[in-house]
Amino acid sequence: MDSQTKTENCLGWAATDPTGVLSPYKFSRRPLGSDDVSIKITHCGVCYADVIWSRNMFGDSIYPLVPGHEIAGIVKEVGSNVQRIKVGDPVGVGTYVNSCRNCEYCNDGVEVQCVKGPVLTFNHIDVDGTVTKGGYSSHIVVHERYCFKIPNNYPLASAAPLLCAGITVYTPMMRYNMNQPGKSLGVIGLGGLGHMAVKFGKAFGLSVTVLSTSTSKKEEALSLLGADNFVVTSDQEQMKGLSKSLDFIIDTASGDHPFDPYLSLLKSAGVYALVGFPSEIKFSTASLSPGMKTFAGSVTGGTKMIQEMIGFCAARKIYPQIEVIPIQYVNEALERLVKKDVKYRFVIDIENTLK
Amino acid sequence: MDSQTKTENCLGWAATDPTGVLSPYKFSRRPLGSDDVSIKITHCGVCYADVIWSRNMFGDSIYPLVPGHEIAGIVKEVGSNVQRIKVGDPVGVGTYVNSCRNCEYCNDGVEVQCVKGPVLTFNHIDVDGTVTKGGYSSHIVVHERYCFKIPNNYPLASAAPLLCAGITVYTPMMRYNMNQPGKSLGVIGLGGLGHMAVKFGKAFGLSVTVLSTSTSKKEEALSLLGADNFVVTSDQEQMKGLSKSLDFIIDTASGDHPFDPYLSLLKSAGVYALVGFPSEIKFSTASLSPGMKTFAGSVTGGTKMIQEMIGFCAARKIYPQIEVIPIQYVNEALERLVKKDVKYRFVIDIENTLK
Repeated sequence: MDSQTKTENCLGWAATDPTGVLSPYKFSRRPLGSDDVSIKITHCGVCYADVIWSRNMFGDSIYPLVPGHEIAGIVKEVGSNVQRIKVGDPVGVGTYVNSCRNCEYCNDGVEVQCVKGPVLTFNHIDVDGTVTKGGYSSHIVVHERYCFKIPNNYPLASAAPLLCAGITVYTPMMRYNMNQPGKSLGVIGLGGLGHMAVKFGKAFGLSVTVLSTSTSKKEEALSLLGADNFVVTSDQEQMKGLSKSLDFIIDTASGDHPFDPYLSLLKSAGVYALVGFPSEIKFSTASLSPGMKTFAGSVTGGTKMIQEMIGFCAARKIYPQIEVIPIQYVNEALERLVKKDVKYRFVIDIENTLK
Repeated sequence: MDSQTKTENCLGWAATDPTGVLSPYKFSRRPLGSDDVSIKITHCGVCYADVIWSRNMFGDSIYPLVPGHEIAGIVKEVGSNVQRIKVGDPVGVGTYVNSCRNCEYCNDGVEVQCVKGPVLTFNHIDVDGTVTKGGYSSHIVVHERYCFKIPNNYPLASAAPLLCAGITVYTPMMRYNMNQPGKSLGVIGLGGLGHMAVKFGKAFGLSVTVLSTSTSKKEEALSLLGADNFVVTSDQEQMKGLSKSLDFIIDTASGDHPFDPYLSLLKSAGVYALVGFPSEIKFSTASLSPGMKTFAGSVTGGTKMIQEMIGFCAARKIYPQIEVIPIQYVNEALERLVKKDVKYRFVIDIENTLK
């Protein structure tokens, strides 16, 4: 075996320029450290973040770029200090793979708020100076802290979307006490995040209203996802009927959109949690203050909450709706994701198709 | 006694047109009902709301208009059903004097969020169809529910500003758990509300930083009010030094102003409570979401919290800084209030000067 083959020990798919088109790419993962876990990736979810950075939409992409931060797989090797995780364990890796492990947030299990910033799973400079590469690849080596156990009875393909879509809605729902049976939740947008908000909402015993710009997902929202109500936001009458009726709103819309019409749906003391990422937030003080409402921003969650959520999903048999695809279909999948043509999350079958 | 004299049983000062100039005005208060308390007003605080409605700045003023919703006085008569309050009790009345007393918010002691809307203390139509008239007057008749007991050792002149300025900052501070010793608070604006936020912050054991557009109140903020730090917001270096350092911000500024620079001062998971009333709230999603920050609107508080706050102020000897004035000075006081030339709340000595 020559040195080059030895170094390029991982097969992935990478974007090589801002067209964002992905193609096979060999690269090297670091050798296993004493606190590391090496994971044979079986599945990786397709998140809109993969589109953003593959296509350099934020201007900070480093090519070749291997996307993917909804990773599920099987542990194939563990470092000498690793106690919690064993070879053969089904595990997941989410949107970050490192943090300082020494600040108040890390100590609190909220590593995503690490004062030095968490090291994101792809397109980020790790502490050793290398650029992180994501889950559209055959294996990954991570510190065990950023690796989550998945119960044996939980399908790995279904587990993958929990690691970003799931935790991104679960975190504000727990933080703002949305798990109160009998309360009401509005969910704006019914994509990867939104459909998980509906599922969590129902599991928490909430009355869930989907707020959508089109009727196209109405039947599925009600019958498949179990939402109680579906409102087309352009319908003024329906919106008026919902006025001051919701305890909580989870807004998963990432495009710029008005906030006042949605804030008017909240009851007094209601909580509006934004998990999408529009460029700007703008609303009238009259929409917020007289009703003493709360507008909350949120992004993914800490390791403690991720492990808790996985356990909750397994115990309550909550599974994302997924469309499993071969890696060879990924460019088409990204295109469809841009067009919102997915119900509700693509998951790449890495194990059987990445060869 | 002719019928007119009998009817016009109350002497007040009223604005009669949008110039907002106040002058003596006789009017009638309702007869005492069985649940009512009649209060001889001794003091009334001067709030910016008095300027707003005296001058018809919101376009909904009903003249003649008697302002004042920071009322303190002595009970002179109680209705047959009144149990909690006795003749001779020192009491206060705040920004509202009625509500439905039958909705989830009223039942929760948060009458300010009453689904039918609270009846405000002045310039509002009460359930009997009359227009409410405020505390720039010799007496007031209110349902006992909206009347708060003031401990005997607490000066009535000092109690008055608690009923609006005090409770407006106390409510979000309690709601968002700002009473955690060792945490840090930023206070934007050092007027009637802001100076109370500083006092409550210190009583809660917080490290308090005043954020001001000018240095004029620096010495007093540090020496008199006990703030730990004073930052002039135009000083980029000082602002940069505060970056991500505050757990909480109370924003008392009512003029339109940018929010991004202040949001950048909050730590992760920090809470920004807006108690001022600018016309619009606008900031970048990047200022809120990555740090999972909370932006909260708030206005005054419920009866339960008001009574609690009065007890807290008496127990901890927290007194607003006031400038006591005769009613004859009120027009000048309103002018000075507009120019922010007050340290920190005018209180009208009704008892000795309204004759």
